[in-house]
Amino acid sequence: MARERTARKREEHEVEFSRIVAFSDGVFSIAITLLVLELKLPQHLQSGEIWHALGEQREQFLAYAISFAVIARFWLVHHSFFSEVKAFDSRLIGLNMLYLGFLVLIPFSSQVLGEYGGHLPAVVVYSANLTAVVLVGQWMAWDARHAGLAKADAQTERESLVRSAFISGVFLLSIVVALFDASIAPYMWLALFFEGRGHVIERISRRSSSP
Amino acid sequence: MARERTARKREEHEVEFSRIVAFSDGVFSIAITLLVLELKLPQHLQSGEIWHALGEQREQFLAYAISFAVIARFWLVHHSFFSEVKAFDSRLIGLNMLYLGFLVLIPFSSQVLGEYGGHLPAVVVYSANLTAVVLVGQWMAWDARHAGLAKADAQTERESLVRSAFISGVFLLSIVVALFDASIAPYMWLALFFEGRGHVIERISRRSSSP
Amino acid sequence: MARERTARKREEHEVEFSRIVAFSDGVFSIAITLLVLELKLPQHLQSGEIWHALGEQREQFLAYAISFAVIARFWLVHHSFFSEVKAFDSRLIGLNMLYLGFLVLIPFSSQVLGEYGGHLPAVVVYSANLTAVVLVGQWMAWDARHAGLAKADAQTERESLVRSAFISGVFLLSIVVALFDASIAPYMWLALFFEGRGHVIERISRRSSSP
Amino acid sequence: MARERTARKREEHEVEFSRIVAFSDGVFSIAITLLVLELKLPQHLQSGEIWHALGEQREQFLAYAISFAVIARFWLVHHSFFSEVKAFDSRLIGLNMLYLGFLVLIPFSSQVLGEYGGHLPAVVVYSANLTAVVLVGQWMAWDARHAGLAKADAQTERESLVRSAFISGVFLLSIVVALFDASIAPYMWLALFFEGRGHVIERISRRSSSP
Repeated sequence: MARERTARKREEHEVEFSRIVAFSDGVFSIAITLLVLELKLPQHLQSGEIWHALGEQREQFLAYAISFAVIARFWLVHHSFFSEVKAFDSRLIGLNMLYLGFLVLIPFSSQVLGEYGGHLPAVVVYSANLTAVVLVGQWMAWDARHAGLAKADAQTERESLVRSAFISGVFLLSIVVALFDASIAPYMWLALFFEGRGHVIERISRRSSSP
Repeated sequence: MARERTARKREEHEVEFSRIVAFSDGVFSIAITLLVLELKLPQHLQSGEIWHALGEQREQFLAYAISFAVIARFWLVHHSFFSEVKAFDSRLIGLNMLYLGFLVLIPFSSQVLGEYGGHLPAVVVYSANLTAVVLVGQWMAWDARHAGLAKADAQTERESLVRSAFISGVFLLSIVVALFDASIAPYMWLALFFEGRGHVIERISRRSSSP
Repeated sequence: MARERTARKREEHEVEFSRIVAFSDGVFSIAITLLVLELKLPQHLQSGEIWHALGEQREQFLAYAISFAVIARFWLVHHSFFSEVKAFDSRLIGLNMLYLGFLVLIPFSSQVLGEYGGHLPAVVVYSANLTAVVLVGQWMAWDARHAGLAKADAQTERESLVRSAFISGVFLLSIVVALFDASIAPYMWLALFFEGRGHVIERISRRSSSP
Repeated sequence: MARERTARKREEHEVEFSRIVAFSDGVFSIAITLLVLELKLPQHLQSGEIWHALGEQREQFLAYAISFAVIARFWLVHHSFFSEVKAFDSRLIGLNMLYLGFLVLIPFSSQVLGEYGGHLPAVVVYSANLTAVVLVGQWMAWDARHAGLAKADAQTERESLVRSAFISGVFLLSIVVALFDASIAPYMWLALFFEGRGHVIERISRRSSSP
């Protein structure tokens, strides 16, 4: 394949490779930390109003918790994908940039969610943003594996595909649910991240690999 | 133990391990630098009002100083804990993320403290935030040591436990104090960080280890 | 040459060299992530107004997309330039700082562009900012190559020069176009980044090297 | 000396040492990038008002340029100091944190300067902030050298001392000047950074070393 010839091996260009990873890590850590900026208490409150004002931020706290968990998990996936990357070319770097471009939007989507969590547009914006990250991430992984830049056994690859389809599916479903009641959607995502997702995915991907 | 078998050794996965540390360091350094954003002078003041406006920021400066010292110390503890980590698994990474999730809230709590330092809710928010960081940090350390991922001699471990209990205790106590006079609490924390805490802890942990 | 004698070899000062690169990467990743802060939805909207408010941010989304692509590309150029650097001196560090000084302005220029994209001043500010980054970058590269700090073959060097001239030219041209219709200019830049620029530059630089 | 015995050698604790440096670099790069946040154009201007509004930001642009140059130079000094550090202890880490604590205040001082550059309080705040950074930096360097943690020849040490005294002197002088005309002070600092300071310092430190 033409691409393999122009790809640079990781071990021969360790400094350049680690700059890509370091740049990505920098973006991840800044994006996750900027989430705190959406939490703000108004100034000049009376003593008795402070608890109330804090209580009014509960949607923002929920959005913070969800988005922190989401970005943390994306970082883990990114982390484990890049640990199997053996070579890189400008296409992988470009897709990684596109990936980061959607990832950096999450603090904005999270602000929208925190402010308008019970309304359809917020659910759509947030779901669309996260689905974009998942799909571009899957595209990047698929592309790198098929160009011989990353090595993954068939089981890992299948799991990664099923996981992406599953997450995207939940987000699309949450948009449908939000058409009826937008305030339920965020809890669907929370469930996605904290309940036995792994087991479901493992079972599906094993079943799909059995003859 | 089952966990030890799935844990990845640090020396065999140096790149992945250093990404975890680099990501944490990134979050620490951004969180500590974002503290400056809570300091703001209003626009369009007359010449004579500037000193006054600066004076009115003294609570914010105090909150900045406390929070900077607090995050710096947390970073040191994190730093010294991770220097004894010999292997890591997804559970350690997850606990580290939970730890960072509370750490990143500190700029928010610090803004609340700077704005409403003399009021009970601010003291509760700040104390609760910092106690959460300390307890999750202790949980992570305890868990890693008992899963064989980190190695610490008995004395270090005891000191770390006593220190966590001590800090949590001071914060809980400051909430009680704040029920009577909320403006005293911040000075209790300052004392905690600048006066001979180390000696107290050493003495307590030595005593508790003597037969 | 006097400068070569005071320059420090990269392989002998790997830690200092990698700090320069790490510092630059940090600045790049923060600048690119701060772009998200220009996206903001007003508070307290009615349910029916949210879609409308999102639609009103379309200029800001366009500015975000352009600026993200621009900074990502600058990072790639910086990345590939520093991979050919073999030694460094205080002059290279100084020029790199000047380069970063203009780069960090991009979130501001991008905010101006997002807010006033259809107006001449926004186009001038944005074009001037990006031209400054390109020219200082070219200056840094030219200077380092002629002081023997970086090694590039004649073809790479010619391509880099033609590219800088080309990009600067497009930005200057966009200012002229903006004198007539400022709303067209941003699309000129988008075209610059997504359409077959590489091929044009390769053809020009090959032609200019043929006898 | 007691301290030398508890200090950890750099080469034996390369990971921990590089985390200190990486954390510092992170703080430097974030602080320098946050400077851009003080540049802001008001929303909803008429087309004809944009140039005017940009012109009104000229003080902020000047403050940005000065502060960027200042932080960049501090980074260089920090960079070159840490390249001579051979061992570290908790005291060096603590002083480095104190140093960073003042450094992170610069975006605030810079905002004050950009807003109220022609007024005495702004000059005092900015000068005091920068003098604090210089003095703590000098303290850290002096302390590390005399505890045997860093190695510097007598000439370097003398130059570093004279430089700190010189910079502090200029800032104190600028406060005196600001008592008469506050708008001149920023230009004194600019001169400090761009004109032949190096030569003056070299001459003074050579003279002071001659018998």
